[in-house]
Amino acid sequence: MIELALIGIGTGNPDHLTAQAVQAINGADLILLPRKGSTKSDLVDLRRAICEQVLTRPVRIVEFDMPVRETGGDYARAVDDWHNAIAAAWRAEITMHLPVGGRLAMLVWGDPSLYDSTLRIAEKLKVGGVAMQVRVVPGITSIQLLTAAHAIPLNPLAGAVTITTGRILRAHGWPAGADTIVVMLDSGCAFEVLESVGITIWWGAYLGMAHEALEQGALADAGPRIAVRRAELRVRHGWIMDVYLMRREQNNGA
Amino acid sequence: MIELALIGIGTGNPDHLTAQAVQAINGADLILLPRKGSTKSDLVDLRRAICEQVLTRPVRIVEFDMPVRETGGDYARAVDDWHNAIAAAWRAEITMHLPVGGRLAMLVWGDPSLYDSTLRIAEKLKVGGVAMQVRVVPGITSIQLLTAAHAIPLNPLAGAVTITTGRILRAHGWPAGADTIVVMLDSGCAFEVLESVGITIWWGAYLGMAHEALEQGALADAGPRIAVRRAELRVRHGWIMDVYLMRREQNNGA
Ligand SMILES: C[S@@+](CC[C@H](N)C(=O)[O-])C[C@H]1O[C@@H](n2cnc3c(N)ncnc32)[C@H](O)[C@@H]1O
Ligand SMILES: C[S@@+](CC[C@H](N)C(=O)[O-])C[C@H]1O[C@@H](n2cnc3c(N)ncnc32)[C@H](O)[C@@H]1O
Repeated sequence: MIELALIGIGTGNPDHLTAQAVQAINGADLILLPRKGSTKSDLVDLRRAICEQVLTRPVRIVEFDMPVRETGGDYARAVDDWHNAIAAAWRAEITMHLPVGGRLAMLVWGDPSLYDSTLRIAEKLKVGGVAMQVRVVPGITSIQLLTAAHAIPLNPLAGAVTITTGRILRAHGWPAGADTIVVMLDSGCAFEVLESVGITIWWGAYLGMAHEALEQGALADAGPRIAVRRAELRVRHGWIMDVYLMRREQNNGA
Repeated sequence: MIELALIGIGTGNPDHLTAQAVQAINGADLILLPRKGSTKSDLVDLRRAICEQVLTRPVRIVEFDMPVRETGGDYARAVDDWHNAIAAAWRAEITMHLPVGGRLAMLVWGDPSLYDSTLRIAEKLKVGGVAMQVRVVPGITSIQLLTAAHAIPLNPLAGAVTITTGRILRAHGWPAGADTIVVMLDSGCAFEVLESVGITIWWGAYLGMAHEALEQGALADAGPRIAVRRAELRVRHGWIMDVYLMRREQNNGA
């Protein structure tokens, strides 16, 4: 039996780990760390650094190569194939390093529930016959870092919030009925598709990390500023992760 | 100058505090704890217990009586009046205990960004002329506890999520375009207004606490079960806090 702990580690600042996450890391027999290729190697290094910082007993740490996602073609299909490849990679490591079972820990960026595939991949292993119990340890998300950095509420007073992706925003525009939205997984500046009148944006990149960057303002002014800054930062650091919240004046009751 | 730290403490389990929250609590000159009346006194005790558990130096802790919200009449107006009354109560404590300024900490349930009024109240103090810098320390939310307890993702694969309230769900029904919604601040069982076909619910009460309760299933079966259990638990403990996630089969692309 494998006891798999999916441990949310926050988004870059080791001080965002909870005591429960620290305990779960220390309670593992094996920690699997994905190697993601050179551009984002800061991120693997960061997971290693977190392990080194919080481990108070010797725990075996194994890095494995993350399969690469096919681009182009059908998106849902490509993602599913990719998840299957990751599940196979996990399975190989488990067979090699925990042949008679044990406590496996995976460090998940932010919180394991939010735009992260580890829960779905664990499900695939179970369906594939691996005897496994999954435990989730929550972690601080990039959304919480964004609202904390700007010291703003997520929801309008007594109102709703929609969390969505750059892809959906581009395809469908501002979600019907929403007055606050959070956009994640935006590979560009999807807010550029919007009619900017009446919209305010709060943006953050590399949240919780040394080169955290923040911008905020009316979308008409801040939007172009963010586009320029984002492009510069991306070139400077070789990668970027950003998230933003937008509010639209007009409370239509949902 | 007042340096106000709004510190997210999670929703009941002290192991959910981050290292940053522990540091912020220890870094304060004064911690203000709201006294909320007898029914929810477990919650004040819990904040006290957290302070006792994590404080490594003597920090002054002061309890103050939380003003009570008027019920009935215009909702937005009642909430605003209530926030003004709370701001006045904070101000009185600050004047008394930090007359020349200093570091003030407030412990916020879950994360300060999510359906919590402390940021808005701090804003009122600033507008009212109190020289104040606000820093937000993120904390694990009840939503993350819910998804962790059920080991489920928040968002559908590549899809969006709407976070809303019982009041909005009752007034407007299932939000247009959404396939996953999270409902908070539901004083009853607002899901009962929905046509249950095709909807699955994951429910949790007292998350992170000793009497955590979970239910899950097709809304048609689980809904009535939750309604009964909720009523029982509420009587048994004198209060209840619950949150639930629902998914609707039917991916309409947003
Ligand atoms: C695959 S998702 C993972 C989200 C993560 N599970 C969480 O809880 O935040 C990656 C997206 O999260 C956001 N993100 C993650 N870390 C971030 C950071 N440090 N700063 C800004 N955005 C971040 C970006 O929108 C990015 O495209
Ligand atoms: C005023 S809001 C505060 C939310 C808090 N800031 C957070 O981050 O979760 C209170 C609502 O949060 C949810 N909630 C808070 N604590 C909870 C718990 N321990 N278990 C279940 N739901 C909880 C319930 O929906 C409740 O009505």
